[in-house]
Formats: sequence, C-alpha cells, structure tokens
Amino acid sequence: MYNKVISLFEQRGVFMEDIIECVFYLQKRYIPDLTKDQIQHYIDSVLNKREVQHAIVTGIMMDIMVEEGRLGDEEIQKLIMEDYGLYGVDEVLAYGICNLYGSIALTNFGYIDKVKPGIIGKLNEHNGQCHTFLDDIVGAVAAAAASKLAHDRER
Amino acid sequence: MYNKVISLFEQRGVFMEDIIECVFYLQKRYIPDLTKDQIQHYIDSVLNKREVQHAIVTGIMMDIMVEEGRLGDEEIQKLIMEDYGLYGVDEVLAYGICNLYGSIALTNFGYIDKVKPGIIGKLNEHNGQCHTFLDDIVGAVAAAAASKLAHDRER
Amino acid sequence: MYNKVISLFEQRGVFMEDIIECVFYLQKRYIPDLTKDQIQHYIDSVLNKREVQHAIVTGIMMDIMVEEGRLGDEEIQKLIMEDYGLYGVDEVLAYGICNLYGSIALTNFGYIDKVKPGIIGKLNEHNGQCHTFLDDIVGAVAAAAASKLAHDRER
Amino acid sequence: MYNKVISLFEQRGVFMEDIIECVFYLQKRYIPDLTKDQIQHYIDSVLNKREVQHAIVTGIMMDIMVEEGRLGDEEIQKLIMEDYGLYGVDEVLAYGICNLYGSIALTNFGYIDKVKPGIIGKLNEHNGQCHTFLDDIVGAVAAAAASKLAHDRER
Repeated sequence: MYNKVISLFEQRGVFMEDIIECVFYLQKRYIPDLTKDQIQHYIDSVLNKREVQHAIVTGIMMDIMVEEGRLGDEEIQKLIMEDYGLYGVDEVLAYGICNLYGSIALTNFGYIDKVKPGIIGKLNEHNGQCHTFLDDIVGAVAAAAASKLAHDRER
Repeated sequence: MYNKVISLFEQRGVFMEDIIECVFYLQKRYIPDLTKDQIQHYIDSVLNKREVQHAIVTGIMMDIMVEEGRLGDEEIQKLIMEDYGLYGVDEVLAYGICNLYGSIALTNFGYIDKVKPGIIGKLNEHNGQCHTFLDDIVGAVAAAAASKLAHDRER
Repeated sequence: MYNKVISLFEQRGVFMEDIIECVFYLQKRYIPDLTKDQIQHYIDSVLNKREVQHAIVTGIMMDIMVEEGRLGDEEIQKLIMEDYGLYGVDEVLAYGICNLYGSIALTNFGYIDKVKPGIIGKLNEHNGQCHTFLDDIVGAVAAAAASKLAHDRER
Repeated sequence: MYNKVISLFEQRGVFMEDIIECVFYLQKRYIPDLTKDQIQHYIDSVLNKREVQHAIVTGIMMDIMVEEGRLGDEEIQKLIMEDYGLYGVDEVLAYGICNLYGSIALTNFGYIDKVKPGIIGKLNEHNGQCHTFLDDIVGAVAAAAASKLAHDRER
C-alpha cells in the first residue's frame, strides 16, 4: 500500500520533497547536519506502517468526496470544505498517526499545525480544492518522522 | 445537529433504547438503581457535544459510502466493508469521542468493544450492510455517557 | 481540591495572572477583545475538573520529590531533573488534561510547548528547581481553557 | 534500562510468566498455537522501548512512595492507596504506553482492565501494598505486546 500512498499524495499535490522540508523544519534546531536521505528514510518508515496507511488513504478519500460534493450530508460537507476550525475529525485522524510515535510526535504536530510551514501552508489556501484532511495528515507524517528521528539519534 | 444524529442513528438501525441498554450494561454493577431517564440524560449530553456530533455524522457517512461502493479506493473500501480488525480508523474516531470523557470512558469502550453486548453485537453481524464505523461510535457514545454518569455520581 | 491546586501553583511560582497570559497568547489572533475575567472563568472551569486536579497535584508532587532527591530511582530522577526531551511522561500527563477538551486543546498544547511564552519559558529555566511536570501542566491547562473558550464562542 | 524494568517488576511481584499469561489470555481466541517464546519476544520488544521504560519506572516509583507514605499530599496519596476508580492518572500513564501500539492495544487494555485476568486481578487485591499504577502498567504492556503480535501475524 506504500506505493498507493505516495501516488495519492502526488495526485493531491504533495511530494516527498515537501514532507522532507517539513521534517527538516521541525528538526533543524536540534540536528543541523541532517541529509535529505536520512530524513526520507524516516518518512518511509512511517509511511510503511499499516495504521498510518489506512488513515492516509481514508483521509484523502474524504477530501476527494467532499470536493466532488458526494459526502451525503450537506452540513458536514460544508464544514469540511471550508476547513472549519472546530470540525475536529481531521485532527483526530492525525493524532491516530502521531500517537504511534510518542509524545514528541504530538507536540511536533501541534506546532507545525499552527505555524504551517511550506506545503502545509500551501494546502491551507485551497482554491476550490479540499485539503482539510490532507494538511493534517502531512503534518502528522512529518511530526511522526521527526519524533522517530529524534529517538534514534539518542540511542 | 442533535436531531440529525438521532435520525441518522435510527436510519442505520440504532435507537435510543439500544444505547441506554449499553450504558446500563456498563454501569449496572456499580449503580444498580439507574433509571432509563437518568441514563438518557447522560447520552443526550454526550450527543449534544459538537466534536461528538461531527465524529458520528462523519463515521456514518463513511459506512454509507462504503456500503454503496462509492468510497473511491477499492482496497480500503474492502477492508472497511469486512470490518477488518487491523483497519483501525474506526477505533481512532471512537477514541476521539471517548477521550473527551476521560480515562474511564476509554476503558469502558475497550471492554464493550470486545464483549459486544446488545446492539453492538447485532451491528457486527452486518448482512450486506456496513456498520464498521457505527458499532464503534455507538460503543464510544455509551462508554462516554457511562463515564460522565460515574463522575457525577461521586460529586 | 480547587483551592489546593491554586495554592500549589503559587508555591511553585505560577499565578492565575500567568495562566491568563498564556491563554491570551493562544487566543488573541482569534478573539482580540477578550477580558481577563472571561479568560479566568474558563481556566477555573478547567481547574474544577476532577481528572485535571488529580493530574496537577500528582505532577507537582513528582517535581517536588525529584527536586528533593526522594524519587527512589537515580536514573529517572536525573532525567526528570534535567527535563530530558525524550522522557515523555510529563507530556503524557499533559495530554491526559488536553484530551478532555478536544482536538484544539492538543494542537494548542503542542504549539505553546514549543514556543514557551511567558511563565512556561520562565519555568523552563529551572535554576536548581524542577519544573519538568509543571511547565507542561500549565501549558495543558492554558491550552484546555483556550479550547473551551473557542468552542463556547461559536455557540 | 530493560534490566531495571524486569528487576522492578519482580520486586513488586510481577514475573515474565505473568505477563505472558495476560498476552495469551488476550490472543488465544485469534491465535491458539502461540508459544511462550513467541509471546516473550513481543513483550521484550515492548519493554525495550524508551517511553515505555520511563512510564514503567515512574509508575512503580509512584506506587512505592504512596505505599511508604512519602508522596507529600495526603489527599492524593489516599486516593492512590485505595486505587480510587476516578483517580485516572494511572490509566493516563497506561494509555501513554498503549497509544504507541495502535488502536488494538487500547481496546485490549480496556478489556483486560475490566476482566482482570491472572496477575492483574492478584495485584488488585493489594493487602497493604499499593499497586495502583502497576496493575495498569502490566495490563498496558500485555495489551501492547498482543497488538504488535496481531499486526505481525498479518504481514
């Protein structure tokens, strides 16, 4: 399912380079000598986890259905389409990813979700598209990879 | 949105009576003199919470889309349709509800999700329908109501 | 137990004013016209919740025991004393508070925990004292109050 | 720190055999042919994780300090000593462990925490000792190991 995840990300405008940039943003103050290859190794490890893959594909399907107006409930569809701050289910899915990588992953996610560096900020602009689940998913994957990296560096 | 939640539950075969029964199942050993009215009061309080409502409607929409074969990704659709034990996103949504009601709600959910009393067991039989999200949602609502009830009894 | 919580906070150098400042920091961009009284109302509501009170008192007792060298395990005591980034139990306790207030509380916490405004930054400097649990607890209480405030404003 | 964890468990009356029994209890209906060696492999993998080790040692230190009357706050000490059901911090620590192993770990924990098989039931009887944190920790470790085992079996 790893290949599908990568391909869905790309269809929705998110490339490995973008996620690497987010992880770098989170870790640069702690580990300034990180290479892209090292970071990608950790992102791949996150993207290979089964529960992570399920959350990613499910979230992206939600975004697409909302975008195409096929969700079935008008009210929730509108909340998701406008990325309503108190909707909450998008963050719940993201926490489902972060929780697997410990408390640092959750803190990283909260930070990146407010500051919105790089691709996360770009996804937030929408322009007719719906990325309500995707921006939190990308943030969660980056936060999880950064947490795993931090733990491994200390062994 | 409370009325929509009740009406969606009923469309999918879950009635207030069923949820009351689950809460009673969880609390009977601690508080044997509970009346249905008291229990419904707590369920209503849970169902009036905004993040709970969003999770319920979102989850039921997922079930319906899977049931109608409109989810967009065959593989995930199949996992949800057969209520695959390692899918995990249904439980993540349920924890999103339980977390709001503290640690007892989470323990209650884990228990009810394994023992599957009443409606939860019935939803699990499917028969062509998909209740993968709904059975966890009902369990989470009952677990949350039971937790709130336990906390209030001790004031 | 509310009075004990306030008194323990003050003994450890945290005053209501400090927590109000943190909540204001989190909410000012959304709700610029907040008064201190309004904010304190939400902080009090958080501090009146039983599970929150238990987490606060437990965490502060941990800090004090570590500070006095009475924890019993040298290795863990050292990790807590130096606020080791990968210790993690302090954040787990904080999430136990935030989870009760939904997904916005968790995001708020992650943000404030990285940026460390006001009292949270000051607690982080230690100077012979141990505030490893306390800084996360204050962040969690502020994050929870800000989340409740945001939800209530939208009713 | 693995050796310390094993030795603390044994000092407090919990042996590898006991945890294996709990995992077996959780998994027997799904995987009847499990050997003790296979189960221990998964328990060891859980016990080798840094955040798990920190939670275990911290929790056991709490139990010991309460037992010896050295916690510093009479009221919280009494709640922990009598394993008060609404205390909640012991479960928060346990969820900190379970979350790392996904949604099945949380469900397993909720179940085992209610049914209290084997050592978990025994720890609950206390007799002058305090095992309020320990019984939840053992349940969480078993639940986590069972979850990892279930995920690996499906590869």
